Amino acid sequence: MNAREILREHIAKTASLTDEQFDYCFEHFEPQSFKKGQVLIAEGDRVDAEYFVISGCLKSFFVNDEIKMYILQFAMPTWWTSDYNALYTKSRASINVDCITDAEVLSLSNASREKLCRDIHQLEYFFRWRTNKGYVATQKRLLSLMNNDAKKRYEELLELYPQLYNLVPKHLIAAYLGVSRETLSRLYNAH
Amino acid sequence: MNAREILREHIAKTASLTDEQFDYCFEHFEPQSFKKGQVLIAEGDRVDAEYFVISGCLKSFFVNDEIKMYILQFAMPTWWTSDYNALYTKSRASINVDCITDAEVLSLSNASREKLCRDIHQLEYFFRWRTNKGYVATQKRLLSLMNNDAKKRYEELLELYPQLYNLVPKHLIAAYLGVSRETLSRLYNAH
Repeated sequence: MNAREILREHIAKTASLTDEQFDYCFEHFEPQSFKKGQVLIAEGDRVDAEYFVISGCLKSFFVNDEIKMYILQFAMPTWWTSDYNALYTKSRASINVDCITDAEVLSLSNASREKLCRDIHQLEYFFRWRTNKGYVATQKRLLSLMNNDAKKRYEELLELYPQLYNLVPKHLIAAYLGVSRETLSRLYNAH
Repeated sequence: MNAREILREHIAKTASLTDEQFDYCFEHFEPQSFKKGQVLIAEGDRVDAEYFVISGCLKSFFVNDEIKMYILQFAMPTWWTSDYNALYTKSRASINVDCITDAEVLSLSNASREKLCRDIHQLEYFFRWRTNKGYVATQKRLLSLMNNDAKKRYEELLELYPQLYNLVPKHLIAAYLGVSRETLSRLYNAH
């Protein structure tokens, strides 16, 4: 499937668009290709777009004063990523987004998303449910971080992203779980 | 202000409704009063509604196998609360919602919210932005839990809910921060 078909199928899971409506919608997305390691958003940037992943894998993360990295999200094909706090509140980026592998994305600007939502009620519905799902997933992760030990969180991660172990270096998985690489090795070998 | 005016003002901050549209919208909300300690949602329940708080203070929380309580959210006037995971995915409640003080809420069923969003495009816009804000707030809290120590999280909590310290028993604040009451006392006295 090409980028257009992937987006079409993704939206169709939630909302019904006519061919005309989808054509109009798709015009607002910009295809972009990135190399492994390339940065889409760096802390301090103005953030004007969100990214729908077509291929490859991205990560959103932040690095604290002690140079420790925390991973907020891995973004696989058909996932969306950005610094949503910065995007929605028009503040500067407080996190980073970069590419774990070569990646193709469809970029959608803030202004275009709002225009599409105004013009096509079904797209407003789509984006409402897109965020509803993101909200629930983030809340689940918060509960898990408060309550579950590293072993349980590791199992949840594999459930959420079954293909992750082949795609992503181990130190990044450790940074998602908030554990050391040594702890991760123990969990990995016990699994 | 009465419940109707509070909801009207709350929606008007995000979306423009005509008087007629708001009247139609308001018909779908059901006023409910609860006493301190009363339970709106218990783990295992079917969840069919979300609650817009008019007065009082609610909490959403869960209790793990070791009877340790974690607080996900305090809900003050003009905040919304429910078990959104259960509400959106039509699964059983995995958290609880109850009243810290006597409370008045406006209850909105899942079916009514979807109907309102279908019938009035501006309400779909309102609920999209309501969730966008909730998503960003939850993501911030997740980052904070990963990176910040209890002292920093305590300061963030006071910033988010300035009136909290007078309203809410200290052991509940400790349960929100994920610290013991003794640690909270130290933070409180240092403040």
